[in-house]
Amino acid sequence: MPVPDAPVTGVPSDLTGPTAPVPARPSRLDPAIAARLRRTADGLVAAVVRAHDSGEVLMVAWMDDEALHRTLTTGRATYWSRSRREYWVKGATSGHHQYVRSVALDCDGDALLVSVEQVGAACHTGHRTCFFTELPVTGTEREARP
Amino acid sequence: MPVPDAPVTGVPSDLTGPTAPVPARPSRLDPAIAARLRRTADGLVAAVVRAHDSGEVLMVAWMDDEALHRTLTTGRATYWSRSRREYWVKGATSGHHQYVRSVALDCDGDALLVSVEQVGAACHTGHRTCFFTELPVTGTEREARP
Repeated sequence: MPVPDAPVTGVPSDLTGPTAPVPARPSRLDPAIAARLRRTADGLVAAVVRAHDSGEVLMVAWMDDEALHRTLTTGRATYWSRSRREYWVKGATSGHHQYVRSVALDCDGDALLVSVEQVGAACHTGHRTCFFTELPVTGTEREARP
Repeated sequence: MPVPDAPVTGVPSDLTGPTAPVPARPSRLDPAIAARLRRTADGLVAAVVRAHDSGEVLMVAWMDDEALHRTLTTGRATYWSRSRREYWVKGATSGHHQYVRSVALDCDGDALLVSVEQVGAACHTGHRTCFFTELPVTGTEREARP
């Protein structure tokens, strides 16, 4: 039997983002799709990238409306770089292209699942996936289940 | 042969977030882990949730440092709700619990991959996964490859 849930206590913080919808940057994205997006305070949605064949999760990047438009209409995964503050087409410099097979939007509009044919390593470090750093899970609640 | 990359042109925008590291909210998270996080402007990292057995991507939610601490130490997936501005333990109200099997951090510290044992549907709509809305990919560049 699951043990009781952890206490849920809100921690008000001045770092908390606005709850009102964030306006889109100017873009060529289909307005019907743009209307479904719920963006971070900096106008972005998370793009989860997986290998279309194995289903492996390769990386997470960020898209604004225009990056999503370019991804859908070119078939090449295109992101917004938060650090460089510019668009980047995955593989343009590395040769590690991502050919887009499908894109799905999640139920609340703040994340995309991009299935790609990945050429070479997805991670700039040379790893196939960016998620190569395991964190320690010390909780044992799952062992307490019946 | 791949056709030339799409043009990459930066679009400066006042909606663009800061590039400086975002300070953490107060939390009990291991400082060594906290130091690796690169947060959104509202202090969050994206948590990609997948089924530990099938590898299926179920949902994306958000964690601040304290939510990650609770997830790692309780073994129950715990998120920060951007809309309700409070912590939520997945399944606390729905019964659709997520027992955490592993957590991995990505190479640049702005996303987590949480592998869970999912009880019932991950999506609040009743779908097993939140990514049930396909968007049209009209680009045909991938067909042009050799």
